[in-house]
Amino acid sequence: MKAKVYVTLKKGVLDPQGRAVLGALKHMDFDEVTDVRIGKFMELELDVPEGGDEDKRLAEMCERLLANPVIENYRIERD
Amino acid sequence: MKAKVYVTLKKGVLDPQGRAVLGALKHMDFDEVTDVRIGKFMELELDVPEGGDEDKRLAEMCERLLANPVIENYRIERD
Repeated sequence: MKAKVYVTLKKGVLDPQGRAVLGALKHMDFDEVTDVRIGKFMELELDVPEGGDEDKRLAEMCERLLANPVIENYRIERD
Repeated sequence: MKAKVYVTLKKGVLDPQGRAVLGALKHMDFDEVTDVRIGKFMELELDVPEGGDEDKRLAEMCERLLANPVIENYRIERD
């Protein structure tokens, strides 16, 4: 089974990496860009039987390791 | 206008960050995970009129700054 995990910074949390990319884009004359937020995108390959508790397990992985729930949101997508 | 950009490592390119996360997951008894690949997920806000050349411009941003086309693939999604 494959799963995709999207991790994004919560609203209101400063994103210095995004600010730097926005600055670089403006410097390269891409002035139409007004905001950039940078997150992570993870592709996981899992070896599990169908109909198990993989949704719960994936959420647990996100809570404990893949995301920082204090400042980040995550979304899990299964293929 | 909003756009989402997904940047992933090309097949065959080593992903040390993904290996580290895989190792950590196994250490935490998430043994069902067999592979992890880590990419970037960017949300861009653009101030453009409808029907312009923003698709071309977005591709150019990816080629020149947001991704490294030698080792990374990118995918652009418009909201």
